Amino acid sequence: MNHFSFYSPTKVIFGKGVADQIGTETKAWGGTKVLIHYGGGSVVRSGLLDRVKKSLDESGIAHVELGGAVPNPRLGLVYEGIDLCRKEGVDFILGIGGGSAIDSAKAIAIGVPFEGDVWDIYLNKVKETDALPHANIITLAATGTETSSSSVITNEEGWLKRGHNSPFNRPRFTLMDPELLYTLPPYQTACGIVDIMMHTMDRYFSHGGTNEVTDRIAEVILRTTIQYGKICMEDPENYEARSEVMWAGSLSHNHLTGLGLPGDWAPHQIEHELGGMFDVAHGAGLSAIWNSWASYVYDADPMRFARFGVNVWGLDMNWQDPSVTAREAIRCTVDFFHSIGMPVTTTELLGRETTEEEMQELAVKSTYFGARKLGNMKVLEEKDILEIYRNAR
Amino acid sequence: MNHFSFYSPTKVIFGKGVADQIGTETKAWGGTKVLIHYGGGSVVRSGLLDRVKKSLDESGIAHVELGGAVPNPRLGLVYEGIDLCRKEGVDFILGIGGGSAIDSAKAIAIGVPFEGDVWDIYLNKVKETDALPHANIITLAATGTETSSSSVITNEEGWLKRGHNSPFNRPRFTLMDPELLYTLPPYQTACGIVDIMMHTMDRYFSHGGTNEVTDRIAEVILRTTIQYGKICMEDPENYEARSEVMWAGSLSHNHLTGLGLPGDWAPHQIEHELGGMFDVAHGAGLSAIWNSWASYVYDADPMRFARFGVNVWGLDMNWQDPSVTAREAIRCTVDFFHSIGMPVTTTELLGRETTEEEMQELAVKSTYFGARKLGNMKVLEEKDILEIYRNAR
Repeated sequence: MNHFSFYSPTKVIFGKGVADQIGTETKAWGGTKVLIHYGGGSVVRSGLLDRVKKSLDESGIAHVELGGAVPNPRLGLVYEGIDLCRKEGVDFILGIGGGSAIDSAKAIAIGVPFEGDVWDIYLNKVKETDALPHANIITLAATGTETSSSSVITNEEGWLKRGHNSPFNRPRFTLMDPELLYTLPPYQTACGIVDIMMHTMDRYFSHGGTNEVTDRIAEVILRTTIQYGKICMEDPENYEARSEVMWAGSLSHNHLTGLGLPGDWAPHQIEHELGGMFDVAHGAGLSAIWNSWASYVYDADPMRFARFGVNVWGLDMNWQDPSVTAREAIRCTVDFFHSIGMPVTTTELLGRETTEEEMQELAVKSTYFGARKLGNMKVLEEKDILEIYRNAR
Repeated sequence: MNHFSFYSPTKVIFGKGVADQIGTETKAWGGTKVLIHYGGGSVVRSGLLDRVKKSLDESGIAHVELGGAVPNPRLGLVYEGIDLCRKEGVDFILGIGGGSAIDSAKAIAIGVPFEGDVWDIYLNKVKETDALPHANIITLAATGTETSSSSVITNEEGWLKRGHNSPFNRPRFTLMDPELLYTLPPYQTACGIVDIMMHTMDRYFSHGGTNEVTDRIAEVILRTTIQYGKICMEDPENYEARSEVMWAGSLSHNHLTGLGLPGDWAPHQIEHELGGMFDVAHGAGLSAIWNSWASYVYDADPMRFARFGVNVWGLDMNWQDPSVTAREAIRCTVDFFHSIGMPVTTTELLGRETTEEEMQELAVKSTYFGARKLGNMKVLEEKDILEIYRNAR
């Protein structure tokens, strides 16, 4: 088990109706004037926004609002939120909705006390030293951002998508009510299932030595997400299934499943550029490129993929040739993605083949224009990444 | 999955040599003058105390010392620590050593700003509203107190042992170095293994409904502790084995393994009185009464014990009669405790049979003199508890 550091201070309150605790919790954490940041109309239509405002009013907490966060949340809206908070004297940020609303709430929280351009923090040019406290109500089981240290923002100029990891991104609290997921469209539920699996798999598939507590927890998260994810697709108002997947989603990305492992993360980084260029849902982008990535790298450590097959998919081990089990495990994963309606090629994702020119642009952007290589299972250069985009068509 | 709240904000730094980071970490968390609280001579003999003082000196942090914490840590020493901190103007507490040093460090941290008698907090007569910040270096894989919200103190007057759970008990950080466990006597290693298992099992054995993420993580913690615990006994300087058990120990008691379940806790509460009366090691007390407890309650939910047998001990399920698998699982657990040198009866624990008078006193103390019942798997009154003490001989 390699050296690690684990810090996940977010308080989780989980269960039916917990959204109505937002006033008392915000007050307990010291908020007096909050920004309510949300996405599209579903938070309004479901009545959640009204419940939030009522709860804040009852606790005597003033509030201003900013809607409009979209998937692959935009830098422009972050700037708008920062200006609004400064003008209104906001001291606490609430992200209400899916991953996008919460990721941009985090960016706003960091941006308010920061004197320079918050985008420079996402470009790793400078580090923040402070942030407003923030918290959230998550209406999706997917990104894990409700407790994670990360936030991903897209700059509309050049459609660059960049992630930022920082202890300041950790929310003070999150209110998780599985009933809020009942009305999700099936496509979003499926994207979330892929996202949870990929947060776990991008940590799991790396060369890390003996690491059994971490590896076995990762396998539990995957098995449970697959088992109950299927039930969520068939029976969207099944509370038990929504609960299991929602809690698995948080644990998949609070870093518990990666402790003592370096992680790979190439699939995420390869997808980020797809999402930035084509504005596709993150989970769908991940499932569209995973087969190509896994098939390209598995021979670097067939035993790791074979273990995944045995412990996650319940395969019988081929002791003569673990590569057979490894390939079978990849096939099971791809078949599962397909079975919940997710694309497994970029052609399925986009409705057309990517052009050679597009793929070359995606590959060079993935390497930050030659500044980095990707991955740990197999270290990938631009030519490898291009090949993965090609095989993903 | 029932409603739950999860708050585990302690920062964990894990790996070889991390103890030397105590100066920089304490400084980062705002400590300027610390109390170093430790137990017996092993922290001195191993050179750890000198390393701690050197690291604090290098970070310019003033320090005073208080040694002498013993297993089942005493209230008298807690009072002494509170007085010392007030006199010296200490603003940060460091517990260095096993569970006892850390539990009494927590009691001191709560006691310093508290105007009344800190024991009243342990008696649930009054609640604290503040505490000094505290952190620790743990030299045992056992109690989980390095990240947990609990602390257990024994009052020498009447030998009452009482636990206190509070968010103020959560340490700011913990430094976990598996190498510090190499020199533990085998008996202490074994007691720790039992303690880790029991923190998990006392949460696991309860009627909680569907709760797969939690249940499966609990099973992982148990399997890994059993597998690598054996290796720790045979090869005390095996870094991988010490790592796995040490990290499992923290996760067993930060409450991850009990989310959405009410927990049972009767074995802990039954043991607490044994520990208070006979001053035995907590892990040894737990293993001495577990067989009697499990045999008394398993028929309330044989499927739960059968699942434990299949998923933790790798037993084949008896589909005709799950009670058979349940009893086999209890037998496997007892045999394992024996195999690592732990007592499985109170007679083995104490070297003599408990008297009827002693058992009656233990039973009435367990119920807080009639004020409570114990357990969830089966709710236990004084007569049941007496029977469990009798069967444990």
